[in-house]
Amino acid sequence: MTTLSMTSYCGKVIKSKSKYHEVIINLCHLPAGHEGKCDELWFLNHLSVVSQRVAEKIKRDAFFTTGASWKSAVAGPNRILRPVMLLDDEALLKHGINMADMKPHVIRKLRDKAADYQSCIQVAMKLAWLTYQVPGAPQAPEEIQTFLEAHFGAFTPPACCPICLLPLDYALFEQAQRGTALIETCHMDPRSHNAANVGFGHRDCNIAQGTKSLDEFYFWISGIIERANQRV
Amino acid sequence: MTTLSMTSYCGKVIKSKSKYHEVIINLCHLPAGHEGKCDELWFLNHLSVVSQRVAEKIKRDAFFTTGASWKSAVAGPNRILRPVMLLDDEALLKHGINMADMKPHVIRKLRDKAADYQSCIQVAMKLAWLTYQVPGAPQAPEEIQTFLEAHFGAFTPPACCPICLLPLDYALFEQAQRGTALIETCHMDPRSHNAANVGFGHRDCNIAQGTKSLDEFYFWISGIIERANQRV
Repeated sequence: MTTLSMTSYCGKVIKSKSKYHEVIINLCHLPAGHEGKCDELWFLNHLSVVSQRVAEKIKRDAFFTTGASWKSAVAGPNRILRPVMLLDDEALLKHGINMADMKPHVIRKLRDKAADYQSCIQVAMKLAWLTYQVPGAPQAPEEIQTFLEAHFGAFTPPACCPICLLPLDYALFEQAQRGTALIETCHMDPRSHNAANVGFGHRDCNIAQGTKSLDEFYFWISGIIERANQRV
Repeated sequence: MTTLSMTSYCGKVIKSKSKYHEVIINLCHLPAGHEGKCDELWFLNHLSVVSQRVAEKIKRDAFFTTGASWKSAVAGPNRILRPVMLLDDEALLKHGINMADMKPHVIRKLRDKAADYQSCIQVAMKLAWLTYQVPGAPQAPEEIQTFLEAHFGAFTPPACCPICLLPLDYALFEQAQRGTALIETCHMDPRSHNAANVGFGHRDCNIAQGTKSLDEFYFWISGIIERANQRV
């Protein structure tokens, strides 16, 4: 049996049928020296079986730009691959995305959400690592836990909302309001999509943080509390 | 010349062509004993001329249920007169509003926003009273100022956001993001539409408050700040 390195990947190219196969080269992230077929997001396979909704959410949040759940001239197009948003306007036009047609705030939003392929992969891993530490989460298979811990450190449940700092509850992944889960992917700095900067947090907390960085948000609400206390 | 009472209204019925004329009886709110034509919302006439957008916003927020700026099965119908939402399901059906077709959260939202005609009128007055106290606002004509002050007390600018307690800026009424003004009508208790409970506040503050009451919001963010400080 081969000794597997949990932090270096196989890295073989996986053929893709996506219309973006020239922009995004899908790689195998199984440990180097693995047996069997290559697999890009193998560390989500267990969640895909026991908690499909959560696995799909991780893939969506890690790889796609979002916005409103609806598509409109005001909200802009939805669910574009983040690495695609690194292309310039000319290249995007060849893929049918006409930035010249979009309003400035839509362009800003889309460009803010651009991220390279490796950052997206790392975000998916980080979110998987967090998921297994949420109270009520399924138990991670040993191989996946070892792999994720090699990247982000030992599991230390309970996973907390990075904004309100209270423990999350796995049931919130399933409870949806208007089709939106009560746990969302949060960005400490809203304009940076990488593993160090993302976490799972409460929907209400994420909405309250808005477009502020987490530091800006804490500073803002500190001022509110100070003024509210002075008034009484 | 008749002596006008600034707190009692003419109260004559103003004929309406609205399809809801049987539900909502429009009354004249000019001071009792006024000369000339009756007028329901005469205290908004000056704003309608110098700042039409703000006057329209006051009418909309005072009298209509809102929600998303779009209409959909998920968001529910938009801009129903608040007094109409006091009718029971059977009466609503006669007006073409089928509550049985709506999702529970839409029904809750619409019913929460119901308010009687006099509450809506008082809200419109309160918002007009606040508007003239926002830094940068036009100067109120004397008759309107006297009328509004008789109801809500002397103007004491600057008008502040009831959530963050910082002064508002009249320019924010005109600055819109995605078609939404940066000042919104706030409710200290989100489920009660009356003059004592409404104010003008910053859009970001209103979004952060969400469906919490103002007291709940302060309690919530106090806890966040406490935990954030403990962590450092």
